[in-house]
Amino acid sequence: MTEQIAQAINNKTKPRGSLGRLEDIAAQICRVQNTTSPRLVKPTMAVFAADHGLAAEPVSAYPREVTIQMAYNILAGGAGISVFCRQNGIDMVVVDAGVAWEGDKPQGMVDHWMGPGTASSLTGDAMTAEQVQQCYAAGAAVVDQSTDPACTIMGFGELGIGNTSASSLIAAAVTGIPLEDCVGPGSGLAGDGLNRKLELLREVWDRHPRSHDPRQIMAMYGGFEIAQMTGAMRRAYELGRIIMIDGFVATAAFLATWAEDPSIVDNAIFCHESGEPGHRRVLDHLGVKALLRLGMRLGEGTGCAVAYPIIVSAATFLNDMADFEQAGVSTGAPEAAAA
Amino acid sequence: MTEQIAQAINNKTKPRGSLGRLEDIAAQICRVQNTTSPRLVKPTMAVFAADHGLAAEPVSAYPREVTIQMAYNILAGGAGISVFCRQNGIDMVVVDAGVAWEGDKPQGMVDHWMGPGTASSLTGDAMTAEQVQQCYAAGAAVVDQSTDPACTIMGFGELGIGNTSASSLIAAAVTGIPLEDCVGPGSGLAGDGLNRKLELLREVWDRHPRSHDPRQIMAMYGGFEIAQMTGAMRRAYELGRIIMIDGFVATAAFLATWAEDPSIVDNAIFCHESGEPGHRRVLDHLGVKALLRLGMRLGEGTGCAVAYPIIVSAATFLNDMADFEQAGVSTGAPEAAAA
Repeated sequence: MTEQIAQAINNKTKPRGSLGRLEDIAAQICRVQNTTSPRLVKPTMAVFAADHGLAAEPVSAYPREVTIQMAYNILAGGAGISVFCRQNGIDMVVVDAGVAWEGDKPQGMVDHWMGPGTASSLTGDAMTAEQVQQCYAAGAAVVDQSTDPACTIMGFGELGIGNTSASSLIAAAVTGIPLEDCVGPGSGLAGDGLNRKLELLREVWDRHPRSHDPRQIMAMYGGFEIAQMTGAMRRAYELGRIIMIDGFVATAAFLATWAEDPSIVDNAIFCHESGEPGHRRVLDHLGVKALLRLGMRLGEGTGCAVAYPIIVSAATFLNDMADFEQAGVSTGAPEAAAA
Repeated sequence: MTEQIAQAINNKTKPRGSLGRLEDIAAQICRVQNTTSPRLVKPTMAVFAADHGLAAEPVSAYPREVTIQMAYNILAGGAGISVFCRQNGIDMVVVDAGVAWEGDKPQGMVDHWMGPGTASSLTGDAMTAEQVQQCYAAGAAVVDQSTDPACTIMGFGELGIGNTSASSLIAAAVTGIPLEDCVGPGSGLAGDGLNRKLELLREVWDRHPRSHDPRQIMAMYGGFEIAQMTGAMRRAYELGRIIMIDGFVATAAFLATWAEDPSIVDNAIFCHESGEPGHRRVLDHLGVKALLRLGMRLGEGTGCAVAYPIIVSAATFLNDMADFEQAGVSTGAPEAAAA
């Protein structure tokens, strides 16, 4: 099929290779779907929200109650991910993975609540091994029960004050990249705030054993929303869906399932290289290159939602452009064919 | 207004600056339109086609008749620009600026035919001064007479075997960047083919005087489609439209009007950094950064059409996201505000 895919792409009325990354993405979707007619159906964004025990410490520019406020904002349609999904015709599922609600919970979230945020990784493990397991199952259930069975492409977003900290720890532990290189400003720390975050994460790191077991790493440092994303990504992969990976936090979730079975990378499109400096290092470690680099660092899955039309362009040129023969267009000189 | 625009962007429920380039683009559109509610209406792509006298020499991987074949393909809806415009709801105008037709001309092109291709810049000027003037007027007429008056954003594309050669010469002459750094594979030359192209363009360069007059530069090296794009860009700027600039050839056309009045850069969004190596050098010279870098080098305006949804995202977040107060979301710590 690989040969047929390459031939289908090269027969289109354009100089060979002249659509660059769009050709790579088209070929990838074709390989996943075992076809030369890629289909993007019912694009769906699953956004997981949860709180973090570590957010009691000064690791974020925002207070912890912002997780609750932003969950309401997403549900009301006013958040970044809400407007980008509407713009691009992407269905959205919002999952309560473990928000520390104060008062009533809002309507409209899929309920996989694991508790009012994780424990603090500064004083022990963030999650138990059982909670990790439950989160992986919950993420899979979101894919199975809360998305359209016809869906062929999914994105994954997150919301949780403190979750770049958890992600830095997971990324360093899974990849071996030095912790310092995985820590960044998150939603907006600078100067002393960033130094305090790094010192605190170094303290967390030193309190835990070194481990190469991704589930143990997730238990030590992870978040409910991160672990549920991990489970959802794995399930989407098992179903043969294309997986759109957003920024640093989503990539940390991806690392946890990639470490168990690297073949999931075949289905993954890394949509946006985050402004969070550790992201580039992790993408290099995975041997992948993000589609966009717009300096975004909002999370919520916004990088996926903004990149989605580019992925549609990749499928569309292959499905809709004329072939050389069909259009009566001369193919290039030997140099062109070899370029 | 600049202060009001910044405030409108910063009041949105996201960490300050966290939408990166989308915030820059939103602010730019607002400045051009003197508003905090940017409007993208009737997006329109104008594609100019013409032939080049220089294409009789071995400067392209494709024979000259491909200009004709691809014009038919665009009109039939089978070319890259056709499918990307359909995908993203962009109106398309195709202009015959000077194709070397063999037999009948196709229906459906706006007629600004200047002749069967330019003269060869190897033996003299490609165009007369009068032709340059006529092309600038023709490009303006396309904007005035063949696009919807309500249009607020336009892209510019081109089709013409040999036109990266003309563009290399224009770019080197306007910017002072060495010719060698402005010459690349175009639609697919490699190895000896690329060396022959460079030698030939060096020969053309040496046969002409050094000039800083952009109209003389256009006459010496230009193409009918390039000069008509130049005129169209200038007119779109005068009408206060946002101008989407595609790759290397469109940027050469832009340089010719920028050299007369650099303020046009205020309205320009450079959509895609071409795989053509000289493009990056020219963008650096202009002090701008392209939105996308997908390794595309197809021309036709495809970089604009593929990037357009990202520009829509920039306008949409500002128009549709909730404000902090409206959504009851806490603003960040001082560090966040300073980030």
